[in-house]
Amino acid sequence: MQVLRVNLQTGTVAYEDIPQGWQTLGGRALVARFLLDEVPPLCDPLGPSNKLIWTPGLLVGHMLSSCDRISIGGKSPLTGGVKEANAGGTTGLKMVWLGIHSLVLEGGPPDDDSWKILYIDADGARLEDANDLVGLGLQDTTAALIDRFDPKIGISAIGPAGERLYMTAGITHIDKDRNLTRISARGGLGAVMGSKHLKAIVFNCPRSNQPDLVDPVLFKDASKRYIKRLQEHPQTSQIYTFYGTAAMVKMANTFGGIPTRNFSQGQFEDAEKISGETIHDLNSARGGEVSHACMPGCIIKCSNVYAGSDGETLVTPLEYETIGLMGSNLGINDPDAIARMNDIANDMGMDTIDTGAAIGVAAEAGYMEFGDHQRAMELMEEVRTGTPLGRIIASGAGYAGKTLGVERVPVVKNQALSAYDPRAIKGTGVTYATSPQGGDHTSGLTIRAKVDHLDPTIQVELSRNTQYSMAGYDSLGACIMGGFGFALDATIIPDLIKGRYGWDVSTDYLKELGREAILLEREFNHKAGFTKADDRLPEWMTREQLPPTNAVFDVPDEELDAIFD
Amino acid sequence: MQVLRVNLQTGTVAYEDIPQGWQTLGGRALVARFLLDEVPPLCDPLGPSNKLIWTPGLLVGHMLSSCDRISIGGKSPLTGGVKEANAGGTTGLKMVWLGIHSLVLEGGPPDDDSWKILYIDADGARLEDANDLVGLGLQDTTAALIDRFDPKIGISAIGPAGERLYMTAGITHIDKDRNLTRISARGGLGAVMGSKHLKAIVFNCPRSNQPDLVDPVLFKDASKRYIKRLQEHPQTSQIYTFYGTAAMVKMANTFGGIPTRNFSQGQFEDAEKISGETIHDLNSARGGEVSHACMPGCIIKCSNVYAGSDGETLVTPLEYETIGLMGSNLGINDPDAIARMNDIANDMGMDTIDTGAAIGVAAEAGYMEFGDHQRAMELMEEVRTGTPLGRIIASGAGYAGKTLGVERVPVVKNQALSAYDPRAIKGTGVTYATSPQGGDHTSGLTIRAKVDHLDPTIQVELSRNTQYSMAGYDSLGACIMGGFGFALDATIIPDLIKGRYGWDVSTDYLKELGREAILLEREFNHKAGFTKADDRLPEWMTREQLPPTNAVFDVPDEELDAIFD
Repeated sequence: MQVLRVNLQTGTVAYEDIPQGWQTLGGRALVARFLLDEVPPLCDPLGPSNKLIWTPGLLVGHMLSSCDRISIGGKSPLTGGVKEANAGGTTGLKMVWLGIHSLVLEGGPPDDDSWKILYIDADGARLEDANDLVGLGLQDTTAALIDRFDPKIGISAIGPAGERLYMTAGITHIDKDRNLTRISARGGLGAVMGSKHLKAIVFNCPRSNQPDLVDPVLFKDASKRYIKRLQEHPQTSQIYTFYGTAAMVKMANTFGGIPTRNFSQGQFEDAEKISGETIHDLNSARGGEVSHACMPGCIIKCSNVYAGSDGETLVTPLEYETIGLMGSNLGINDPDAIARMNDIANDMGMDTIDTGAAIGVAAEAGYMEFGDHQRAMELMEEVRTGTPLGRIIASGAGYAGKTLGVERVPVVKNQALSAYDPRAIKGTGVTYATSPQGGDHTSGLTIRAKVDHLDPTIQVELSRNTQYSMAGYDSLGACIMGGFGFALDATIIPDLIKGRYGWDVSTDYLKELGREAILLEREFNHKAGFTKADDRLPEWMTREQLPPTNAVFDVPDEELDAIFD
Repeated sequence: MQVLRVNLQTGTVAYEDIPQGWQTLGGRALVARFLLDEVPPLCDPLGPSNKLIWTPGLLVGHMLSSCDRISIGGKSPLTGGVKEANAGGTTGLKMVWLGIHSLVLEGGPPDDDSWKILYIDADGARLEDANDLVGLGLQDTTAALIDRFDPKIGISAIGPAGERLYMTAGITHIDKDRNLTRISARGGLGAVMGSKHLKAIVFNCPRSNQPDLVDPVLFKDASKRYIKRLQEHPQTSQIYTFYGTAAMVKMANTFGGIPTRNFSQGQFEDAEKISGETIHDLNSARGGEVSHACMPGCIIKCSNVYAGSDGETLVTPLEYETIGLMGSNLGINDPDAIARMNDIANDMGMDTIDTGAAIGVAAEAGYMEFGDHQRAMELMEEVRTGTPLGRIIASGAGYAGKTLGVERVPVVKNQALSAYDPRAIKGTGVTYATSPQGGDHTSGLTIRAKVDHLDPTIQVELSRNTQYSMAGYDSLGACIMGGFGFALDATIIPDLIKGRYGWDVSTDYLKELGREAILLEREFNHKAGFTKADDRLPEWMTREQLPPTNAVFDVPDEELDAIFD
C-alpha cells in the first residue's frame, strides 16, 4: 500500500511510502492527520495550497457488508474548517485493490487552464486531457468514461457544480451498477476538485484484489458474527431493506422534528405522502428496485432505484435527507417531484441537503410559495443553468441567507442542518453545534436513543458518545447501518482489526479511534480560526418555538463548550 | 445630556442618565463600550438582540471645522464583529443641540411589522408611522420628510438597500444643504436599522443650541490656533479644497496602488481621465460646486457637487474611494459614468466601496467586461431593482465571491478593501488586516507617510500609530482632514478638551483615546469569535504580484499578531 500524490499544477504523479505511524489511520481520522500536517489552516480552500485527500477506511477491501466506504477530505470552502465526506460505491474498494492507501491531490490548476482526468490502473497513474468532458452532467460523464476506458472502471468525478465552484458541490462515486450517484456530498469538496481542474479519477481494476489478512480465520469468524447480527436485527434485515432511510420520515415526524417549511414547523401534515412506506409501495408497484446495495457485498441494501409512473428510473437513490430537505422543508408532498429535483442535484453533483435548505431560504425570501413543486423545479433548473438565482441557491443555505436577507437560516459553521430539527431532537442539535464538521447528522445522530429528546440536561453525553462512535465508523470505512451489527457484540471490530492487521485493540477501540479523529479535527479548526463562537446553533433556534412541541434549543452553552474536555 | 433609548419592538422611548464613567467617551470609543456592555457578542446582527448606537464625538456641537461627525455602531452583519461608521452632515450637531449624548436603538421590528420614523425635538421623542415611506429612495425620502416636518430638520435614514437588508446598506445623513448623501457606509449598519423597521430619524432643532463650555476663552483660543493651522496647510487650504479626496487618484496611481480591474493591477492607464484635477476642471466648466462643506463651519470644503454636461447635479459628493472602486477597479475611465453609479448607490443608501468591489468580482466572474460602463450601470440598475444578480452585488464583494466562485476577492473580515492596494501601500495593508473594523482605509491610512511603502519591515509601527490616531479622531468626532491641523500643534486637542469639559489631558490623549477604543473593539471581536486568523489579508495577495511594482504583501504574520501588544 502506498500514498499516491498528484499535483495538477506541475502535472506530476508519484507513489510514496506511507508516512511513519500513519498505517494505523484511515478514512476520517487520516484526513484530519493529513490536513494538520500538510495544509496551511488559513489557506484559501479554493486556492493552490488546499489539498484533497481520498482515503478508504481501515476495513475497506473485503466486500464485508457496509464496510467499504471512501472518505474524501480537505479544507472546506463552505465551512472554512476541516471536512471529511464519505460515501459508498466502489471507489474505496478499487483504491485498496490498486494498493493505494491514500491519494493526495495538490496544487492549483494546470498553467494552461486545461481540465484533466487522473487515470489509475495496476501499472500506475497518469493525467489525461478531459477538456471534452467539461460541462457534462454526471450521467454523460459516466457514459463517456466507460466508453473511453472500460465498463468495469471505478469513478470519482465532479459535475458542473464542482466545475463552477458551487459551495454545495460534492464528489460522486460510481456504484456497483454503474450509477454515478454515490456522493461525498457535504462541505463543497467538489469545488475544491473543480478549483484544481480535475474532472474525474478513473480506477481501472477489473479484478478483485483483496489485501492480505494477518489472521484469515479470525477475520472470517468475526465477519460471520457481524453478518449474523445484521441478519437478525429488524432494522437492517427488514425496515431499512424495505423502506430505506426514508423510514425516518414517520419517526422524525412523530417526534415533531421533521424540517417543514424552512424549519418553521416540526411536523408535516402530508408526511404520510412522502413516507418510506408510501414510497416503497409506489416504487414497488411501478417496478422500481426497492432494495438496492450501493456497495458490493452489502446485505442491508438500504438504497433504492426509484421509478416514475412510466416505470423508468426517476432517480437513485431517494433518501430521507433529500425527502426532508427538498420535500417537507419546502412544503412539497409529491415523491415524484422530490425525485426529479434529486435527479438534477445528482447529475450536477451537488449536496441535496444544503441545496434543499437553500431553496427553503429562497422561499422564505419570496422566491417561491412553499408547496409549489413546479416552482421548486424551476429553481433547480436555474441551478442547472447557472443563473444568478441558481448560483445563490447553489451557494448553500448560509450564503443564500446573507444574499437574500433572511434571518431564519438553518446552518452551523455555514453548513445546512440535516433533516432533524435540533429543537425537537436536542442530542442531534448538540452534534450539529459541536461537530468539527458543521451541521451534519452523520456526525452523530441521536434520534434512536431511548431518551426524552426534549430534555436539555441529558443530551451532551449522548451526543459525545454518538460522535465518537460515528467518527470511529467513518475511520473504519463502515456505514452507519453497520453499527446495528457492531453495537451488539463489542468483540467484532477488535477481531476484524486483529484478523486484518494483527493489532491488538480493546473493545473501546471504536470510540478511541473516533475521539482521536475529532480531536485532530478540532485542532485543525482551532488553527483555522474556529472558537466556541462557532459551536452554536443559529440564535433564532434558541428563541423561536418549534410547533407542535414548541421547543427551543436550550442546551446550555457551557455544556456545549465542555463536550470534548 | 442624556441617553435616549428606543425599542421598536415595544414601541417605548425613554431618556436615561448617562451611565457612570461614560461621560468621558464619545463616538467610536463609546460605540465599543456600548457593544461590550449591552450586545451579546454571538447574537445575530440582524436579530432583535443587536443594538444600533448613534453617538457624536466628544468635540461635536460647536461647528468647529471638521469636528462634528456622528458615529453609528453595532454588531456588523457584514463582518460579524464590531462596527463603527462615522459621517459628516448635521446629525451629530443636531443630536448634541437636542441634549442627546447617545441614542440606542433596540429590539426587533414592531409586532405588526410596520415601519417607523423616530421623531425627536426639544420636547422629546416619539415613534411615528412610516409605511408611506417604504421603498422610497433617499432623495424622495428627504423630500417627504421635509414636507411632513420642517425644511431645517436633521435626518438619518435608510434607503431601499437597508430595507432589503443588503449587506452593503449604510445609514445616510443630511448635509447642511439638504442633500441626504453623507453616509455611515460600511459594514451593513443600514441593514441593522432595516431589520428593526426604522426608516428614518428626524431631528427637529431649528436653532443652534451649543453645549456649555467650561472655559470658553481657552476653547476659542485653541479653536483659532487650529483653524490657522488648517488655513496655512496647503493640503487643507488648497489641494483638498480644490480637488477634494479625488486628489488621491494621482498619488495612489503614482505609487502603483490604485485598484485596477479587480485589484489585478496597481496603475490605471486612464488615471488622468478620472483624476481630481480633471474632475475639478470639468465640474468647474459645467458650473458645478468644486468646494463644498458637508458640515456647517467646515473651512476645508473637501466635498463637491458634481455637475453633468447639462449643468445639472449628477451626484454629491464624488469622492476618491468611489472613483477607485467604481472607476479604475472596473476599468472605467469616464467620471460621468462613475457619478451616475455613485448616484444610484446614494439613493439606495449603500456603500460605494463594497458595491464597487463586488462589481469587480462580478466582472471577474464574467458578468461584465472591464471598462464597459454601460454594463456597469445595468448592474447598478439590477441592484436598484433587487434582481438576484443585483442582490449578489449588494451582498458585498466577500459574499459575491462565494456565490460567484471567484478567488480574487479583495476583503478582510469579509469587508472590501478601500482604494489603496495593500501590496503597494503595505502600511495600509497592515491596517486592513489588523483593524477590528475590517478592510477600511479610514482606520489608518499610511500613504502620506514619507516612507518606502514597499518595505515590509517598517509598516507595523506606522500602521499602529495611524490606527491609534484615527480611532482617536473617530472618538472626538473629528474628520481625518482636521488631522492636518491637529498634527502640527499637540496642545490644540488638550486645550479644546479642557475648554469644553475642564479635563486635564496630556498631549498623548488622542492616541490614548484611540488605543482605548481599539482595545475595547478587539475585546468585543474576541468574544464574537475572532482570532488572529481574521487578521489576515486574502491569501492570494501574498502570492499574486501586483504590476507594475510586482509587490506581494509580505509583512510577517507574527508582526501582524503583535501589533497591539
